[in-house]
Amino acid sequence: MRATLIYGARDVRVEEVPDPEIRHPTDAVVRVLRSCICGSDLWPYAAKPAAEQGERIGHEFLGVVEDVGAEVSRLKPGDVVVAPFVWADNTCDFCREGLQTSCRHGGFWAADGVDGGQGEAVRVPQAQGTLVKLPVGEDSPLLPSLLTLSDVLPTGHHCAVTAGVGPHTSVTVIGDGAVGLCAVLAARRLGAERVVLMGRHKGRTALGREFGATDLVAERGEEGVERVRELTGGDGTHAVLECVGTKEAIETAFAVARAGGTVSRVGVPQYEEVPMGFAEFLRNLTLTGGVAPARAYIEELLPEVLDGTIDPGRVFDRTIGLEDVPDGYRAMADREALKVLIRP
Amino acid sequence: MRATLIYGARDVRVEEVPDPEIRHPTDAVVRVLRSCICGSDLWPYAAKPAAEQGERIGHEFLGVVEDVGAEVSRLKPGDVVVAPFVWADNTCDFCREGLQTSCRHGGFWAADGVDGGQGEAVRVPQAQGTLVKLPVGEDSPLLPSLLTLSDVLPTGHHCAVTAGVGPHTSVTVIGDGAVGLCAVLAARRLGAERVVLMGRHKGRTALGREFGATDLVAERGEEGVERVRELTGGDGTHAVLECVGTKEAIETAFAVARAGGTVSRVGVPQYEEVPMGFAEFLRNLTLTGGVAPARAYIEELLPEVLDGTIDPGRVFDRTIGLEDVPDGYRAMADREALKVLIRP
Repeated sequence: MRATLIYGARDVRVEEVPDPEIRHPTDAVVRVLRSCICGSDLWPYAAKPAAEQGERIGHEFLGVVEDVGAEVSRLKPGDVVVAPFVWADNTCDFCREGLQTSCRHGGFWAADGVDGGQGEAVRVPQAQGTLVKLPVGEDSPLLPSLLTLSDVLPTGHHCAVTAGVGPHTSVTVIGDGAVGLCAVLAARRLGAERVVLMGRHKGRTALGREFGATDLVAERGEEGVERVRELTGGDGTHAVLECVGTKEAIETAFAVARAGGTVSRVGVPQYEEVPMGFAEFLRNLTLTGGVAPARAYIEELLPEVLDGTIDPGRVFDRTIGLEDVPDGYRAMADREALKVLIRP
Repeated sequence: MRATLIYGARDVRVEEVPDPEIRHPTDAVVRVLRSCICGSDLWPYAAKPAAEQGERIGHEFLGVVEDVGAEVSRLKPGDVVVAPFVWADNTCDFCREGLQTSCRHGGFWAADGVDGGQGEAVRVPQAQGTLVKLPVGEDSPLLPSLLTLSDVLPTGHHCAVTAGVGPHTSVTVIGDGAVGLCAVLAARRLGAERVVLMGRHKGRTALGREFGATDLVAERGEEGVERVRELTGGDGTHAVLECVGTKEAIETAFAVARAGGTVSRVGVPQYEEVPMGFAEFLRNLTLTGGVAPARAYIEELLPEVLDGTIDPGRVFDRTIGLEDVPDGYRAMADREALKVLIRP
């Protein structure tokens, strides 16, 4: 089959790789209907050292079950399923606590001999715990929105949930990428009445408005902080959803947080240390969030995707075939596309 | 009257200062019955640059109301009262949320023309919001335990509460100072069954045991981390209560936290940045805590001090008069005394 490999910065190729097959009784093989490129894929795309051997990439997909191992009893060939971006048994103590990203028998796609999501098919370890069956057909128009259940929607949701967003919480979302926009959507869904979106790409912030942002701040750095403070009577907001991952973003996050407030981060940190010294201590600021246990949230979010209450698939503004994945990376890296959908 | 001033590192003096008097209608004047020296006072005692003019110091006291301003209706001369370590109106929006340390009309003792607690008397701003009446006489044997309501007990409690400690939470407490020991007591009071205390001063950890610590770890750094991991099946604990404030302590805190766990800090940070990079992101670790809004917790903790359910006054292992305060600082800095009680 064909799948995507990354060889280094700005060097992504689609190549022939071995067809996936059942190796363990807990495996399934899934033919991919839709995959996509993630903002976090752009970090290695920007900076990965060149290598002779490419590495598989991609961690968001939905598809059709083609084969199952002997211990997979609740799935069968033909089922349409979505995979969260971390695979997990969904039965260990961490999984039962809703932290499937720390599953004792789980792991990441495209690592340690596991397939990546940007290909024609995937061997899914711990399939019964990992995959969630979708009550739709292979040609459902809902596939793009359902695919967001793999990562961006639950990641935005995790950010809002861990920040304690609710009806009485004012919110700032930092970042107008697909996760930031999903965080806006999630914050509104959890009842927030005031959601300030910090972002400077007009097409994206316009979608943020439609997802429920009440205020837009295009300025960055000190100026952006001033603007959010002006909008909130000088105080900042109770919750700050940091959906970028840079040091500048996390610094801005603390600066726009209200005393006693919470910064939640879901942007993959491009830093080792966080500016939380005496000033943040005096203001009782909390930093939470982390890699989102998407699996924990899919059942909760799925019904609203199915009935159209939310339409997170709108974050996809370009659809390509597998052969065009390298150009899809380029388009996202160059900010030509917000998020690229792949039909292998 | 006499009060304590700090002139620089290891230079604390007791001198004559002006008698406090009512300046604003919201003030009260309190004659101090008991005060004490705080672990946080040891930071300036260790490192404050020498100055010609001394600065008032001390932020924990209880005493007798001597005079009240015209707008103080709920207190009268003769009332025995305790003061939290930050004064506050207790009516603004932050106070109503239980964050009196961010009160819009509050502030710190021994700053901006406000008296310090280590003296014979104190002018108390926002007296009606700040002071809590105690149903005891001037000679009550409970005064030491009641004085801990000013800072160390609610600070330990704040640490445990913000870390989410409850019956199903395993806990590590870092630091065997008075706050660490109160954090042990608070964690047990909130239902924690497993409380590991990291500390290496035998007299202190013995008291920690009596306050409810189930395990003691005397080792520090990597070795201490290994020991806590051994005690917890390799996982670390759900909650980590960081009661020291050094960079080493906060590093240890993250290393002994279980995935999905929370580090709460109440030790005044002696660092500007916190090690929360990619590894901590992957483990979904939270950092919370901060300067404790003691005022928010006094009514909750007071009944158990009064009926003897808890006996936090045991953290005081030396009692001195006001004239001996300089030697009290020395004794605490040299680890001769755990916490020094002052009878002015």
